[in-house]
Amino acid sequence: MEIKVLHQVMDWNEDVSEEVKKELASRQICMINIMGSPGAGKTSLITSLISRLRPDLRIAVIEGDIAGQVDAEHIAGLEIPVVQLNTDGACHIEAMSIQHILPELPLDDLDVIFVENIGNLVCPAEFRIGESLRITILSIPEGDDKVEKYPLMFTDTDCLVLNKYDMLPYFDFNEERVRANYETVNPGAPLFCVSSRTGDGLEALAGFILENVRKIKA
Amino acid sequence: MEIKVLHQVMDWNEDVSEEVKKELASRQICMINIMGSPGAGKTSLITSLISRLRPDLRIAVIEGDIAGQVDAEHIAGLEIPVVQLNTDGACHIEAMSIQHILPELPLDDLDVIFVENIGNLVCPAEFRIGESLRITILSIPEGDDKVEKYPLMFTDTDCLVLNKYDMLPYFDFNEERVRANYETVNPGAPLFCVSSRTGDGLEALAGFILENVRKIKA
Repeated sequence: MEIKVLHQVMDWNEDVSEEVKKELASRQICMINIMGSPGAGKTSLITSLISRLRPDLRIAVIEGDIAGQVDAEHIAGLEIPVVQLNTDGACHIEAMSIQHILPELPLDDLDVIFVENIGNLVCPAEFRIGESLRITILSIPEGDDKVEKYPLMFTDTDCLVLNKYDMLPYFDFNEERVRANYETVNPGAPLFCVSSRTGDGLEALAGFILENVRKIKA
Repeated sequence: MEIKVLHQVMDWNEDVSEEVKKELASRQICMINIMGSPGAGKTSLITSLISRLRPDLRIAVIEGDIAGQVDAEHIAGLEIPVVQLNTDGACHIEAMSIQHILPELPLDDLDVIFVENIGNLVCPAEFRIGESLRITILSIPEGDDKVEKYPLMFTDTDCLVLNKYDMLPYFDFNEERVRANYETVNPGAPLFCVSSRTGDGLEALAGFILENVRKIKA
């Protein structure tokens, strides 16, 4: 499958994010912004979710990266429409870039667009991109202090995925510490313990996404 | 030990970085900028290096974090001079902040200042802070595609530390891929395989640091 490579356009952000959100709402498309550190497992999670959701939903992916198209190639192998967005050094995706890219996707035939943001626990949280759902991923090897150290990423999200959960026995990771801090900064928000490798926990997360997609279609 | 908390000052950067570097050179102090993703093991590595280097060198630490002082408390427990630098949301440390902070450290009695940068594989690489040595950390659980995806961080560093190397058996991590890509973007630069937990590889890294400190004193 051919992969389109587009480049980040810089401009101010909030108004454009609202425009994108309205445009997508009018088409009943749910855009999902996937955020987390480098190596938290964003691409693997998207891949696993695609295979669970694709019987029910028509899915496309926008792959954000500083450079390269490693992940887009991976997604293209699944026969899913994918566009690579290279930010050329910038540490987050902005709404202008998404607006610029959307016409490259088959919008009349989509229910969900996953956007894989740049691997970064800081800046992506500050820039809305027109999404209706935000998913923050924290992987077990990163450590249990991340909610305290990068609070905005955990405050301003619709759910938290504790990924690589099968690695828990090998790391000194206090799950209760994460749960307590997350509950403090984002009371009542859901948390999913997931392993993309074993598949554990994916069903519940896929259910949460389906529920949100149905809200947009209602 | 009391921990000072200072806040990031924003201003343009390169000139100030040169000023800081000259000031430190005149005092024969080597400033080491430690960069890597959230959870790559920056604090643990600094802690391990302190215990290896402190018989020979007088060390201080500047702990950069978006918010909080978890890591500074940890370092303070080692009876090492430490200042916490909170960036209040910014994703990297700038040279102005370092210049502002230096007088808080006992500069007449130091050989080395470790600066733990914000956990981020993007922006810190773009901002020099007056350092004479840059160390980039990549941990095994983050995956073997990071040099391709975040090239600047691996190009513009004096060495690469492959951390959590004891975790290699548990992850699908192709070390040769990292070595080859690193050699492409940063030919001849050293790479150290290290586990802060087991201590493996620390001796070689400490030796590399000592060598660089002696260059400044020569």
